[in-house]
Amino acid sequence: MRIAIDAMGGDHAPAEIVKGALEAAAEWRDTTIVLVGDTGVLEKLVQGAPANLELRHASETIAAEEEPVKAVRRKKDASMVVAGRMVREGEADAMISAGNTGALMTTGLLIVGRMEGIERPALAFVLPTMDNIGVLALDLGANMDAKPEHLLQYALMGSIYRASVHGIAEPRVGLLNVGTEEAKGNELTKAAHDLLAGAPIHFAGNVEARDVLQRSCDVLVCDGFSGNILLKAMEGTASAIFGVLKEEFTRSWRTKLAAAIMMPGLRGMRKKMDYKEHGGAPLLGINGLVFKSHGSSDARAVKNAVRQARSAVQAGLIRVLSAEISGKQVGLND
Amino acid sequence: MRIAIDAMGGDHAPAEIVKGALEAAAEWRDTTIVLVGDTGVLEKLVQGAPANLELRHASETIAAEEEPVKAVRRKKDASMVVAGRMVREGEADAMISAGNTGALMTTGLLIVGRMEGIERPALAFVLPTMDNIGVLALDLGANMDAKPEHLLQYALMGSIYRASVHGIAEPRVGLLNVGTEEAKGNELTKAAHDLLAGAPIHFAGNVEARDVLQRSCDVLVCDGFSGNILLKAMEGTASAIFGVLKEEFTRSWRTKLAAAIMMPGLRGMRKKMDYKEHGGAPLLGINGLVFKSHGSSDARAVKNAVRQARSAVQAGLIRVLSAEISGKQVGLND
Repeated sequence: MRIAIDAMGGDHAPAEIVKGALEAAAEWRDTTIVLVGDTGVLEKLVQGAPANLELRHASETIAAEEEPVKAVRRKKDASMVVAGRMVREGEADAMISAGNTGALMTTGLLIVGRMEGIERPALAFVLPTMDNIGVLALDLGANMDAKPEHLLQYALMGSIYRASVHGIAEPRVGLLNVGTEEAKGNELTKAAHDLLAGAPIHFAGNVEARDVLQRSCDVLVCDGFSGNILLKAMEGTASAIFGVLKEEFTRSWRTKLAAAIMMPGLRGMRKKMDYKEHGGAPLLGINGLVFKSHGSSDARAVKNAVRQARSAVQAGLIRVLSAEISGKQVGLND
Repeated sequence: MRIAIDAMGGDHAPAEIVKGALEAAAEWRDTTIVLVGDTGVLEKLVQGAPANLELRHASETIAAEEEPVKAVRRKKDASMVVAGRMVREGEADAMISAGNTGALMTTGLLIVGRMEGIERPALAFVLPTMDNIGVLALDLGANMDAKPEHLLQYALMGSIYRASVHGIAEPRVGLLNVGTEEAKGNELTKAAHDLLAGAPIHFAGNVEARDVLQRSCDVLVCDGFSGNILLKAMEGTASAIFGVLKEEFTRSWRTKLAAAIMMPGLRGMRKKMDYKEHGGAPLLGINGLVFKSHGSSDARAVKNAVRQARSAVQAGLIRVLSAEISGKQVGLND
């Protein structure tokens, strides 16, 4: 198995990306990790690397603030684009990047290519839950203005991913909405509710944002805009509360003592809410495995993304998805 | 000043509603609190009440799960509808209800009436922030499918409310979005961004969900659907984390000791994130003061809603809003 990693994308690239790649190569000897980027820079960082770590030169880099479509079209030798081309041409079984999200989606669409039968790819991400199992939410920002038919395709792709990669039989699909009652919502979710109720999935109905952490479903379907609001509201609230906790715990010697007592228990909770733990976000609906790793990814996040990519390759995800999507004849009305 | 309270609406009605009304009547002797509901039930609960507490009989009640428009049209003697009629006819300066949100919005629109020049009323609510000042967010669910022009009107109404009721000069208006860059968002927010940039407000640009708790603006404008997702995601995350904290703190005698040390500091944080503290949510764009109190309101929440209603009456909010809205000639294109 070969996994290409964009060594130049992300806030802590290339150092943390390379570190994560080295750790992954050391752990999984059956997997060849191909670091894509400026070999002049990378060679110094990978000295003494195991034999299953390779370098692939790419002379350009796409920056975080670049306009995605323009960047991908013009920079044909950008590390991200080269990794995408490796996936398209079968030189890599999956690619991972912590770089510019828009550019990665464009790379998926223009370089790797869209999966037949899928109208809009979706960015899927495992949101944390209190029981540590997580909810696969999609779309979290690939497609801002979704139609009901897109939500139906997200539901199908999410169910297949959850079953084949995560081994959850009959994953329950929830629709992110403002109330659990059937008639609740905006025009999009009302129409999507009808489509999901008739789809070959295990539809669990509407799910409210406050119940996500209690894992009221296994797959959460939403449009990219509200999904992004949900993700960032959860992230922001958790981080604000942990910030206050930290402040309170360091206030005096008494609170420092309390902190020492509480730490083992609370560390588990902090880890639970840590988005880096959950590794990469697959871009589903692309004709190859493309994973987005968080922009602020450290070595651990990169290694977790490799773990996830390995599971998807082993499950033959792209083959299963293509077969199921064409088998289920998910046609669009427009 | 006279404030009508729907005594029969909310999860803890009438007991907690009456208790809150009694506390408010005791605290503000210049305000007459009129409890609207079944006097047969209420009379027993208000024995020994101060003279500035009155009862008004209403023979019917609108339940939480009733279809709003049908309920308001049919139950002409429902406590909520009677309170709305009192506002319309000048018998009360404001009304408060913890009952069925949809029915309250319908009461606002059909019984009290829409404000001239406003296309869609909005439910405004003060979201908690780490500095305890809060952000007035609107719309949080009155109108699920908003147009860019509606968001512009929310921005104007929110600014006026924040300035005249909360005394914040030049409130900064943020637009809830998936990124801070100007070009980010869905079709709605992209169009709204242009309108807000040209409006007679202090526009602070796009605001991400994760920055709300840091009070990156004073007024947050959003459509009712994403606003509701934001509110419930924040509420759900805070409540899940406090749940784990409580569990950890009661695990052993050592953690109980730690809890005793930490409690004074953490109680402040819990209170900060407590939506009941912030009282009622004004329904802006109605030709009279209508406040929605949380469905699970206890006496404290009801009293806080009265406090807020008093401030709005004292500020002459409806007069100020009408004058400013017609003065600014906020026309709609359609």
